[in-house]
Amino acid sequence: MNVDALPGHRLTLAAPLPLDCGVDLAPVTIAYQTYGVLNQDRSNAILVCHALTGDQFVAETHPVTGKPGWWERLVGPGKVIDTDHFFVICSNVLGGCMGTTGPADINPATGQVWGLDFPVITISDMVRAQARLIEHLGISKLFCVIGGSMGGMQVLEWASRFPDRVHAAVPIATAARHSAQNIAFHEVGRQAITADPEWCDGAYGRTERRPQRGLAVARMAAHITYLSETALHRKFGRNLQKGALNFGFDADFQVESYLRHQGLSFTERFDANSYLYITRAMDYFDLAADHGGVLAHAFTGTKVRFCVLSFSSDWLFPTAESRAVVKALNAVAANVSFVEVESDKGHDAFLLDEPDFHATIKGFLKGGRL
Amino acid sequence: MNVDALPGHRLTLAAPLPLDCGVDLAPVTIAYQTYGVLNQDRSNAILVCHALTGDQFVAETHPVTGKPGWWERLVGPGKVIDTDHFFVICSNVLGGCMGTTGPADINPATGQVWGLDFPVITISDMVRAQARLIEHLGISKLFCVIGGSMGGMQVLEWASRFPDRVHAAVPIATAARHSAQNIAFHEVGRQAITADPEWCDGAYGRTERRPQRGLAVARMAAHITYLSETALHRKFGRNLQKGALNFGFDADFQVESYLRHQGLSFTERFDANSYLYITRAMDYFDLAADHGGVLAHAFTGTKVRFCVLSFSSDWLFPTAESRAVVKALNAVAANVSFVEVESDKGHDAFLLDEPDFHATIKGFLKGGRL
Repeated sequence: MNVDALPGHRLTLAAPLPLDCGVDLAPVTIAYQTYGVLNQDRSNAILVCHALTGDQFVAETHPVTGKPGWWERLVGPGKVIDTDHFFVICSNVLGGCMGTTGPADINPATGQVWGLDFPVITISDMVRAQARLIEHLGISKLFCVIGGSMGGMQVLEWASRFPDRVHAAVPIATAARHSAQNIAFHEVGRQAITADPEWCDGAYGRTERRPQRGLAVARMAAHITYLSETALHRKFGRNLQKGALNFGFDADFQVESYLRHQGLSFTERFDANSYLYITRAMDYFDLAADHGGVLAHAFTGTKVRFCVLSFSSDWLFPTAESRAVVKALNAVAANVSFVEVESDKGHDAFLLDEPDFHATIKGFLKGGRL
Repeated sequence: MNVDALPGHRLTLAAPLPLDCGVDLAPVTIAYQTYGVLNQDRSNAILVCHALTGDQFVAETHPVTGKPGWWERLVGPGKVIDTDHFFVICSNVLGGCMGTTGPADINPATGQVWGLDFPVITISDMVRAQARLIEHLGISKLFCVIGGSMGGMQVLEWASRFPDRVHAAVPIATAARHSAQNIAFHEVGRQAITADPEWCDGAYGRTERRPQRGLAVARMAAHITYLSETALHRKFGRNLQKGALNFGFDADFQVESYLRHQGLSFTERFDANSYLYITRAMDYFDLAADHGGVLAHAFTGTKVRFCVLSFSSDWLFPTAESRAVVKALNAVAANVSFVEVESDKGHDAFLLDEPDFHATIKGFLKGGRL
């Protein structure tokens, strides 16, 4: 995959980006896509924040996979996030591998691929990079910041850090801090990658080697957590690939074959070190810890309008996590609505065809129009 | 680890063991432990069936790890399963790595370690091997067969296959068929092992190599599924190893360090190919499928007394799975009691200090005494 050949916009920041770890990172390039037209008074911009393995190709055929954009169901002319009305922006996160600066890029100090010399980044760093992009686009206030999962973490960070630059915020299927269980699942993925000898202690980018098998295992483990038990049962149950047990270790069950395919295809579009860095950023996310241990303090005096959404069968970011956010917002008398969408599709529901979910967002965006 | 040097009993079967896959396996050695004394009329025997990574060392210091036996809380003089009254037997399962014949043993046809030439085994095969052991011990009817998780699968298989040789059955935290989600988690573990180049296509046993890193990753992924989110949160939360974030990929969080330790220590006592074979046996388990798709038919006319137990926070073998078993038993008017034990400790609760769980088993064994 030649990242430089990917279509879309690029912004190289004029000044270094100060990171939470203390490093001033430069150069920083941000790869982003836009949909729709920015209006005269620059008041119709919606920033979409992508999840762990998402990217900036929200509403168009993906240039690598050839599949529809990850939120093409929601974003487009006449759709839930209507690009006839809104100017939609999505940038590849800092540390990513689809054009924004990340560990697969060249470290200017050495002339070699960064690898593990790339500084560890945080959700806050990602958001600060996005803020530079928004400034560059001449937008002083976003109409809305919206995103699911890690995208939702960025939404919360935006609302907390830049309350005057956000009119409305829609954190979906997310949490104000990554749970022990989720850190544990991420750690399994990281261990799978770093156990792969092709990972070369993170320096594979300086060679022709790639830790594809480790990355595939990481993806497989993560993929299970995105689905509900019900969804897996409905989709696959104990259905066999060939109608009978083979008494071997080939993929006997359809669910095995599906997972193997998910793992393998992921390695064609994702960088293993980016996976390490982005999972780490999620693990580190703890908005309350940044505010004296009190989540409400992250939102003191906020004028941002919130719409918090969760899915009933999401066990990765269960509704209790969203409730904790709503509770904190209520404690500072914020303008917040909260919907737990009934769905049996698990965490992935935010990417899928969920009419109630779509109607909620559509209604919120309409009601909140300036 | 020198398996031959492990303490305890060994039985080498006189005749080959016919397996579900069609192979007649020979020689088959069964490693087992007993506690207590078999009474005159041989009516006080309790067969304990161990889980995926358990073994025959139920109620004594483990000869490899030096830790207490995995059910030492329950089994012993004056305990829930009182060895002053009962004769307790536990054998390492077929395919295991603690003395019973498995893929790490020598294939007599080649003189080399079996590796992947070992036949794929099933829960039913494991139980048929145990039945040979019980015959050898001169026991025509077990007072009780008891076990959790995969042990519970064996209990169900015993009750279904040998109803006249079992007085009481206690399947704990188990299911009559392995779910799609559980097959998926197992497949991740197997992929982690087979992705390790040290696995050598399964033939590492003929070399000095061992797929320790892959096995550790498999164990880490599985270990998360044994705990509840609540238990992980209570045990670790977001507690840091060194009081502050290190902005790196060392174990920042205690939960990471814990998981790494779990993975690493597991490799000291378990064989990677055994892990493949035993997870496969669990995946294949589907008691209804063996009886025309109707689970109740597995128990038609049974006189076995059942006590079915589940734990409220177990998401690997949720209560719904136990209810399905109870429903099938009710459909054939079996003698069955069912308890969902309130616990926030997840699947592992069957190994832990859960007074209500212990009291239930104690009461059941007492009430059912011949």
